[in-house]
Amino acid sequence: MRKDNTYNKIAGHDTGRIIAISDGVFGVALTLLVLEIRIPFMDSIRSEQDLIAAFLALKSKFLVYLLAFMTTGIFWVGHSSQYKYIEGSDRNLNWINLLFLLSVTMLPFTTAFLGDYTHFKFPIAVYWLNIFLMGTMLYINWAYACRHHFVDEKVRAVVDIPLRRRIITAQSLYLSGALLCFISPLLSIAFIILVQLNYAFAFLSQRKRGSGTAIPEEDVIP
Amino acid sequence: MRKDNTYNKIAGHDTGRIIAISDGVFGVALTLLVLEIRIPFMDSIRSEQDLIAAFLALKSKFLVYLLAFMTTGIFWVGHSSQYKYIEGSDRNLNWINLLFLLSVTMLPFTTAFLGDYTHFKFPIAVYWLNIFLMGTMLYINWAYACRHHFVDEKVRAVVDIPLRRRIITAQSLYLSGALLCFISPLLSIAFIILVQLNYAFAFLSQRKRGSGTAIPEEDVIP
Amino acid sequence: MRKDNTYNKIAGHDTGRIIAISDGVFGVALTLLVLEIRIPFMDSIRSEQDLIAAFLALKSKFLVYLLAFMTTGIFWVGHSSQYKYIEGSDRNLNWINLLFLLSVTMLPFTTAFLGDYTHFKFPIAVYWLNIFLMGTMLYINWAYACRHHFVDEKVRAVVDIPLRRRIITAQSLYLSGALLCFISPLLSIAFIILVQLNYAFAFLSQRKRGSGTAIPEEDVIP
Amino acid sequence: MRKDNTYNKIAGHDTGRIIAISDGVFGVALTLLVLEIRIPFMDSIRSEQDLIAAFLALKSKFLVYLLAFMTTGIFWVGHSSQYKYIEGSDRNLNWINLLFLLSVTMLPFTTAFLGDYTHFKFPIAVYWLNIFLMGTMLYINWAYACRHHFVDEKVRAVVDIPLRRRIITAQSLYLSGALLCFISPLLSIAFIILVQLNYAFAFLSQRKRGSGTAIPEEDVIP
Repeated sequence: MRKDNTYNKIAGHDTGRIIAISDGVFGVALTLLVLEIRIPFMDSIRSEQDLIAAFLALKSKFLVYLLAFMTTGIFWVGHSSQYKYIEGSDRNLNWINLLFLLSVTMLPFTTAFLGDYTHFKFPIAVYWLNIFLMGTMLYINWAYACRHHFVDEKVRAVVDIPLRRRIITAQSLYLSGALLCFISPLLSIAFIILVQLNYAFAFLSQRKRGSGTAIPEEDVIP
Repeated sequence: MRKDNTYNKIAGHDTGRIIAISDGVFGVALTLLVLEIRIPFMDSIRSEQDLIAAFLALKSKFLVYLLAFMTTGIFWVGHSSQYKYIEGSDRNLNWINLLFLLSVTMLPFTTAFLGDYTHFKFPIAVYWLNIFLMGTMLYINWAYACRHHFVDEKVRAVVDIPLRRRIITAQSLYLSGALLCFISPLLSIAFIILVQLNYAFAFLSQRKRGSGTAIPEEDVIP
Repeated sequence: MRKDNTYNKIAGHDTGRIIAISDGVFGVALTLLVLEIRIPFMDSIRSEQDLIAAFLALKSKFLVYLLAFMTTGIFWVGHSSQYKYIEGSDRNLNWINLLFLLSVTMLPFTTAFLGDYTHFKFPIAVYWLNIFLMGTMLYINWAYACRHHFVDEKVRAVVDIPLRRRIITAQSLYLSGALLCFISPLLSIAFIILVQLNYAFAFLSQRKRGSGTAIPEEDVIP
Repeated sequence: MRKDNTYNKIAGHDTGRIIAISDGVFGVALTLLVLEIRIPFMDSIRSEQDLIAAFLALKSKFLVYLLAFMTTGIFWVGHSSQYKYIEGSDRNLNWINLLFLLSVTMLPFTTAFLGDYTHFKFPIAVYWLNIFLMGTMLYINWAYACRHHFVDEKVRAVVDIPLRRRIITAQSLYLSGALLCFISPLLSIAFIILVQLNYAFAFLSQRKRGSGTAIPEEDVIP
């Protein structure tokens, strides 16, 4: 493997652009979510009580907003975890990452769809499919990066198993949650939200542990 | 605390991704605000005077726009100040920062809500709650970073007290402003705007001081 | 060519800002595309079957979304490929890149136009013109960077010919596809989609080749 | 001026965050502009001729789009030019830059306002005021950075005069253009567009000069 300077300049790809486009997409996605919450019309509001009632009527919109923000955040953290270890890229990794981003940009749609039809089974299937695609692309992303030696061998030896296990565990939980819709759609949604809350708020319990002298398992999650 | 190369690659997290996603969210939030100002309809405009009148009728929209831009700017500066000193991160700091960004993305909604209902008390409570959440998350962000040794000890010794004091002072002023709504909602809004203007335009008076040979206290504000 | 420190500070331009503004534009463009897909109205939906039917009626919107995402992705990858080799910039390269971004920001419009009028020839001409402008600006971008010595001579010797050939080949295919509209607009669209799929999914077949010990030709595509 | 390590960590601010938030705002602004162009309604379109006519009816929208893109681009290039030389920042420069970005985010509104009322004088005044604010903030930005020693003295000696002269010349031309509205609003718009085209396409004539062995004056423009 010849490694003169010219060769390095041609074949040496860093992950800077992948990370930049991903943070761009995530940043826009996170910010656009709030646009779905519309301010109540002024015409029907006459008293402080009317206004509070109109505001509280938006509560399902706020829930959907929180859910979508949390899901987007979970996968942003997962993406960050992987690219902390991935030290190079090629054209294919660019496309695998773009397909991951494709599923990220779908989330505002599928979450809103879920929020509008909370008593139906079909939106849960659509929402689950979206999360499944995100998880699958993240898994492929990691597997491809490992197979093509973009992850340091010693680092990979430590993080590979827990990272893959976390994706598979999370996806199993999401699938179980989705299947609960045959009992009750609302139960299904509640379960999915609980799984997500576990990722977002786990830090409350982990805070007490000290500051990472060992490699924390929670650090290799998608 | 073993520190070989592999360990560093696994446990060494920089703050690059946190800063990138934050600047993405702030950049989008700042730019979306203007979309709330709608150009007056052409049908009713027949003369230069009609057009000027239609434009001036938008003045409350412009005020809301300026207010929202200023608030977003204040917290962007505060965020920048903290991450200038924070030299590392972990999964929890990622989530603390995401919750901070959640409150940032709410601002366009709560500011517009305030702008549409300037004579009511309830929107002031909502707006204050939003600013309170932003301040609280920034405070937690700093406290967490300090407790987990992501801030250099010598740097922390100098900036910790003024930084915390500034958040608490600002939040006390915002709370006082919000409570003024029981006298008059407009007085309350005016007071909040004045507190914000103080952060945004304080630089006019500080300009004369010279160029920072001591550590300027205004540098550690949220 | 005098090269003291002051001179370098004045004339030495890196490509950081060009890459940052480009990733910003691409990130926003990729994320905005989904906003075109509107959630079906609740009023007419009474059963699970109604909802599935309403969802499936959106299928052309999803196709347009995928097409636009793929086109944007192809040109982002092409842009990344060039700026991996371009090591400097000047004012003119800034403007060439801005004109490239202008054509990128047009894509959401021209793709939606194509999606709404799939049985007409004119939208195909408009869409083709957009792709032609993007390809042309990327070609000019590369030619300008080479002529003004922003690409290392040894690197250029290897990547110049394949990079230019790929742009010309791709553009010839797009032109052929566009001309097919005189036989049938749908045939024309299908052909353009196939050309694009070739760029997006070529990685499936290339995966087997190993991990880039030679300079892969697919690495110098726009 | 004591310069131990702790001091540097506290007082040493780079311009990374300012550049990141600016590229975020510019990237979003550039991409949002196209959303103003609406695809013609399907109901009234029956033939290829109908469609072409409906498309051509959008021509003023396209002109406004090009104008807004060009203006945004000009000020992005100007901003890049300055921050190439500015090597540090403080809280005040953060706020000066935010106020500059405030005027940048206004542009989509003022340009659309101009595009909708091309036969009136008032929108020209509003549009001119916007450009004037952008130019003024860029001028203050540079002046502040120089006065507070964020620009290397030797670099400043070379670029200061031409950079300031270029802002003043450009602003004089814009003012002259705006005043032409008392003869004819359309003449005024045409003149402003010509001034802007001069910045955007000047590179066509400068290309012949060679590749920057002297410090090119066009490099220090806003």
